[in-house]
Amino acid sequence: MQVGFIQFKVFFGQKKENIEKVAEFILKKKADLLVLPELFNSGYLFCSLRELHALAEPVPDGMTSRTLIQLARDHHVFIVAGLPERAGMNYYNSAILVGPNGFIGCYRKIHLFDTEKKWFTPGDNGFAVFDIGMAKIGMMICFDWIFPEAARTLALKGADIICHPSNLVLPWCQKAMLTRSLENAVYSITANRIGTEHNEGATLTFTGHSQIVSPKGEVLAAAAHDEKIITVDIDPVLARDKKITPNNDRFADRRSEFYEI
Amino acid sequence: MQVGFIQFKVFFGQKKENIEKVAEFILKKKADLLVLPELFNSGYLFCSLRELHALAEPVPDGMTSRTLIQLARDHHVFIVAGLPERAGMNYYNSAILVGPNGFIGCYRKIHLFDTEKKWFTPGDNGFAVFDIGMAKIGMMICFDWIFPEAARTLALKGADIICHPSNLVLPWCQKAMLTRSLENAVYSITANRIGTEHNEGATLTFTGHSQIVSPKGEVLAAAAHDEKIITVDIDPVLARDKKITPNNDRFADRRSEFYEI
Repeated sequence: MQVGFIQFKVFFGQKKENIEKVAEFILKKKADLLVLPELFNSGYLFCSLRELHALAEPVPDGMTSRTLIQLARDHHVFIVAGLPERAGMNYYNSAILVGPNGFIGCYRKIHLFDTEKKWFTPGDNGFAVFDIGMAKIGMMICFDWIFPEAARTLALKGADIICHPSNLVLPWCQKAMLTRSLENAVYSITANRIGTEHNEGATLTFTGHSQIVSPKGEVLAAAAHDEKIITVDIDPVLARDKKITPNNDRFADRRSEFYEI
Repeated sequence: MQVGFIQFKVFFGQKKENIEKVAEFILKKKADLLVLPELFNSGYLFCSLRELHALAEPVPDGMTSRTLIQLARDHHVFIVAGLPERAGMNYYNSAILVGPNGFIGCYRKIHLFDTEKKWFTPGDNGFAVFDIGMAKIGMMICFDWIFPEAARTLALKGADIICHPSNLVLPWCQKAMLTRSLENAVYSITANRIGTEHNEGATLTFTGHSQIVSPKGEVLAAAAHDEKIITVDIDPVLARDKKITPNNDRFADRRSEFYEI
């Protein structure tokens, strides 16, 4: 199974251009599963609810979802993509999973980062795993990485691959994701973005270095700080063996009666 | 507060010599808290219950506990040390915490590694945190590192410093402990051993590289692969601030209603 990410410079507010760039990348490389950054269509640094309202879309009926579904259909690829979701009076920092047969699922970011809390409603539909035949897919978004419970919950629910759209600004995530993959014996695909955003005095620079990590915590592919699509060939079945020694299984050895939650 | 570890070559079965070596190291350096390796007095590679029976001791009335208590009293230091505990018909891979005023607590390893399962009973008294005045101390042992729930549980129970006696043979722990410290905003002290043990055809080489990590996931001190006592000055109070941005607190932001356990 060919899996990968698209790392690129998202331009704030320019949804059409951002989506077109993604479409160009998809043309360049055959893949079964591609992960895009968090808020890949809108950009990150909202300064008002009005701004967010103008960019957010319903899922799966909005323009971005529909375009991604069409791309998935045309290129026979599954896509995980972060976007601002509008649902009634609420806005969510969401990720959707679409495939050749259409919309599959949506994850609403559970652990909001910093000023996201001003605009977004915290995710309210939990961590879910979707079986796409070739593999079982879990989604988490950016800052979810620091909570070990996020990846753990997805793995316990059966995820083989954790798709991780990101807009990283802190320096620690990429290394921590090696631990997330290793401790859960899952693949992880962190699709980060690059570029700098300025908005009303705030400035954020996104760190790039998107990566794909194996269930053994090995980096299978990593981007530098440029626009890039990278794919690697993986065997999702490897993520179903949780053994780490002949006598140790990461899941069977858990002793949840002693765990604080 | 001056905290550190003693990394050394444990000789299997030679309890007196191993304890004497520790005593010599303690003389060399002033510290408030010192962490010793897992099974620091006995060595690791047991081949029979008879062998384990001969080396295990009751806690805190055995010779090793009493000697450590005396050392703690004489040098006004708190000590965390791994040792094989005998309790009735059971043997535990345990760590004890002793101080100038005597015995404080015992942790029985909850996640047993590989062939340890042949000899030891899995820990049955949970993860506990002990307030020694200067700091709150949690203990976990070696392979507990791969289960994020271990360090998380200790941190949620208030540990400022996770003392981590180890006999590491796999290559991943030291890096993973950066994530454990960072995700929980706690200090961690991994006291590993060096040397190779052979016993009835089995061979294990212990990896050294003991380390002390800050609540920000920075390595404050790290050993190479030699015998060493290393201490650093830390402020345990820093481990009580769980903020990672002005709007994010590692603990307050947890959403346990969505976590699988």
